[in-house]
Amino acid sequence: MKLLRVGPVGSERPALLDQDGTLRDLSGLVTDVDGALLADDSGLSRVREAAESGELPVLDAEGLRIGAPVGRIGKIVGIGLNYFGHAAEIGAEPPAEPILFLKAADTVAGPDDTVLIPRGSVKTDWEAELGVVIGSTARYLDSAEQGLAHVGGYVLVNDVSEREFQIERGGTWDKGKNCETFTPLGPWLVTADEIPDPQVLDVKLWVNGELKQDGNTSDQIFPVGEVVRYLSRFMTLYPGDVIVTGTPAGVAMGQPEPKPYLRAGDVVELEIEGLGRQRQEFKGA
Amino acid sequence: MKLLRVGPVGSERPALLDQDGTLRDLSGLVTDVDGALLADDSGLSRVREAAESGELPVLDAEGLRIGAPVGRIGKIVGIGLNYFGHAAEIGAEPPAEPILFLKAADTVAGPDDTVLIPRGSVKTDWEAELGVVIGSTARYLDSAEQGLAHVGGYVLVNDVSEREFQIERGGTWDKGKNCETFTPLGPWLVTADEIPDPQVLDVKLWVNGELKQDGNTSDQIFPVGEVVRYLSRFMTLYPGDVIVTGTPAGVAMGQPEPKPYLRAGDVVELEIEGLGRQRQEFKGA
Repeated sequence: MKLLRVGPVGSERPALLDQDGTLRDLSGLVTDVDGALLADDSGLSRVREAAESGELPVLDAEGLRIGAPVGRIGKIVGIGLNYFGHAAEIGAEPPAEPILFLKAADTVAGPDDTVLIPRGSVKTDWEAELGVVIGSTARYLDSAEQGLAHVGGYVLVNDVSEREFQIERGGTWDKGKNCETFTPLGPWLVTADEIPDPQVLDVKLWVNGELKQDGNTSDQIFPVGEVVRYLSRFMTLYPGDVIVTGTPAGVAMGQPEPKPYLRAGDVVELEIEGLGRQRQEFKGA
Repeated sequence: MKLLRVGPVGSERPALLDQDGTLRDLSGLVTDVDGALLADDSGLSRVREAAESGELPVLDAEGLRIGAPVGRIGKIVGIGLNYFGHAAEIGAEPPAEPILFLKAADTVAGPDDTVLIPRGSVKTDWEAELGVVIGSTARYLDSAEQGLAHVGGYVLVNDVSEREFQIERGGTWDKGKNCETFTPLGPWLVTADEIPDPQVLDVKLWVNGELKQDGNTSDQIFPVGEVVRYLSRFMTLYPGDVIVTGTPAGVAMGQPEPKPYLRAGDVVELEIEGLGRQRQEFKGA
């Protein structure tokens, strides 16, 4: 199923994109698309049955804002340097074990919302990524298979990053990962049953219409199940937590000088097979 | 005022410790002690008037669990190496600008809850810290004075840290800062009006009764107002966000070999003047 949240910022309602591409209202059936729903098998079954009945109310998509498809996110864990191609383009060795950083849930934006370039920024960069939404509590897992079994769904993410803040201002990467609007999510969450193998997905990103990233999740150093297993040894993952699993080659930082960092007025579009497409205009904060 | 949240994990109710040391029930007056309350001047005034009236219902403190005094925390931002004494003890230069890392809100525990030593951990360490609770949205502030004006209250924090995970496992410090129960908070939140100068507070911590940390916030490299100003240039701070402002000298990592990292059965106690006292038993996860 493709689950969405639509409407004004902060008052999104749950919705479903059915197999015919029609937007359907779920607000009579569930309160939100969030960790509680993903952890609730009977709630998901109810949604599935209603979807199959074809009787859910149709929503008028015209002019309707699409929000991030997960509400009440607890934490967002980022995995750094997780594609061989991306590690190579910035001259880094593939890491021996996953690198993690955190993004606050308050940085989340809808897939087509404006992204704000921070004041003083000269190195705002893009990162198209496969996002993983946790479906059940994961703690001290033993295998990548168990890791995959705790995934509730997948979502497209732009892990927007300010490279000077991230790398040149002292301390951890978090400084360049948590500016407001830096985590566009969506348009929809695809439940895990529809993506049996997350390691075969094309990941693409364009800036002002020019293709910049053209990767595939097969290039991931640590695949999704292993990432979930690994993280669960250091922190407990809860339903509704999001893992952004790294970006393929093609970011601005990896390109020759002058590196094409984003400027006000730039338009970034990205997509992952089956996970839909985002489009953001960048402007000054 | 000293605001608390008391009761079982996940169903704490708001409370007040009055000037006579009597615990009073606030649940008839406010839904929770959280960012929404701190941002609501009339809500705080209502609590203050009720407190002064002496008519709030008395709670029986006997056997009552004290929870973390802030509910629905958005993000927790940690400041690293923020005391001259702590930087010196681990052989680090005082940083040129604040080092930041993040802790997920799901790591928060009550002040006297058991803390879990992660499986496989051999370097679990303590960090007594002054916690700052944001009272109003802070974005691109210009001065430390403005920074202080956005503080809603203060709270005692143990920023428990696993040093191998933090430093020796690749990537950012977040890997050693986000294990479950790693952020005991409380016992109470003191509203900012009662701490006119946060740079004059004694910070102490004991392990099994032996004094390990004996510092004062006057040793902070970046004082509270400056920390808030600085962070607001990189991320938006919202009411209910918590900043843990760094630890003074005396952590296990700073001591000669064999460093006295925590083991199951150890008891850690800590206190800051006016912010109360915590006591945690450590046990295996």
